[in-house]
Amino acid sequence: MFETVNVVGRGRVGSAVAARLHERGVTLRQDHADLILLCVPDSAIQDVAARFEIGPWIAHVSGATPLGSLGPHARRFSVHPLQTFTRDRGAEQLDGAWAAVTADSDEGRQRAFWLAQLLGLFPFDLRDEARSLYHAGAVIASNYLVTLHRAAARLLESAGAPSEALVPLMSRVISNGFQLTGPIARGDRTTVDAHLKALHAHAPDLEAMYRALADVTGR
Amino acid sequence: MFETVNVVGRGRVGSAVAARLHERGVTLRQDHADLILLCVPDSAIQDVAARFEIGPWIAHVSGATPLGSLGPHARRFSVHPLQTFTRDRGAEQLDGAWAAVTADSDEGRQRAFWLAQLLGLFPFDLRDEARSLYHAGAVIASNYLVTLHRAAARLLESAGAPSEALVPLMSRVISNGFQLTGPIARGDRTTVDAHLKALHAHAPDLEAMYRALADVTGR
Repeated sequence: MFETVNVVGRGRVGSAVAARLHERGVTLRQDHADLILLCVPDSAIQDVAARFEIGPWIAHVSGATPLGSLGPHARRFSVHPLQTFTRDRGAEQLDGAWAAVTADSDEGRQRAFWLAQLLGLFPFDLRDEARSLYHAGAVIASNYLVTLHRAAARLLESAGAPSEALVPLMSRVISNGFQLTGPIARGDRTTVDAHLKALHAHAPDLEAMYRALADVTGR
Repeated sequence: MFETVNVVGRGRVGSAVAARLHERGVTLRQDHADLILLCVPDSAIQDVAARFEIGPWIAHVSGATPLGSLGPHARRFSVHPLQTFTRDRGAEQLDGAWAAVTADSDEGRQRAFWLAQLLGLFPFDLRDEARSLYHAGAVIASNYLVTLHRAAARLLESAGAPSEALVPLMSRVISNGFQLTGPIARGDRTTVDAHLKALHAHAPDLEAMYRALADVTGR
């Protein structure tokens, strides 16, 4: 559907996307491309989109940014790979991840699905109005997972325990399908109170987060 | 060091531990065992320990429970496998996990390390006084990871997106070594505000948790 693509921006996502398109035989070029694919920071999308003449298809890869940011272009869509990327790896980072597709025309949706699948992603539809809710979920699952790890690693180190011990534990929580075990699952208030006392003494800045998570967990 | 073990309790942990000891050639028996290994709920440890006559070694596998709960036994230790267990799997769940060892004698420590290694665990020392801090870290890393997944899955489903899309994302966060990306890492307050607005409208019970995690992440 697209033989030539202009990938604008070569950050974490843009680098992986460009590498994958090249692998799949798509010609990457800056001028007269069938598709302008914006892989720029969210805050730059609107300005960069406005610099291109109306005509070719244009898309962005942001989870948070509404489709309207691509106006006044009418041939537009977005494909958000629901994945975290690092510069240390290449196109294979896209394999097996899902992608949220938003479009305001049937042809745009078809082209977005085609692009997502070419990239190695499993596409699904996302309404533009549901984007913030979806993206809040993505951030909770990924960014706040980093936050939990950092907090837990700090507590283990403070207790004299090796923080690398957390990795097999956290991996298994995922591979076991997120089964809840532990003190809150068994209604063990004594253990939770002991945690709060230890946090109060040794890491008071984590108390509010612990309480907020315990509240949601215990519901 | 122990040829016979009495594994008391066959819940998630006790079942895996008993299966592994059997695999390793240890004789499991209820009477006259060299070691009584309590795999009972935390709240039962003290009572169950008190039922056994003083003499053989006694140990528990709880992360939260102090060694003193095994009193009046003097030949005592604890080995806490830092792992989450399911009844759907067997002894192999122990492989590659770490274990916190607490003992109040050199011989107890040696025996605890021997037992942990026999079980397939990597043992490390944990002071009894540091136990609550360590266990708070373990709960944050494992139980609250379940909480994050549940919250995120609910938001994706509310947005009409498939929650299974979160699994490759969360797995990659771990395999990429917990690199922080996303709106808070880049100081994107607009996106965070859009999340809070969406949560306020569609999942107000998650607002406090989101804010508390954002606060800790942004520090």
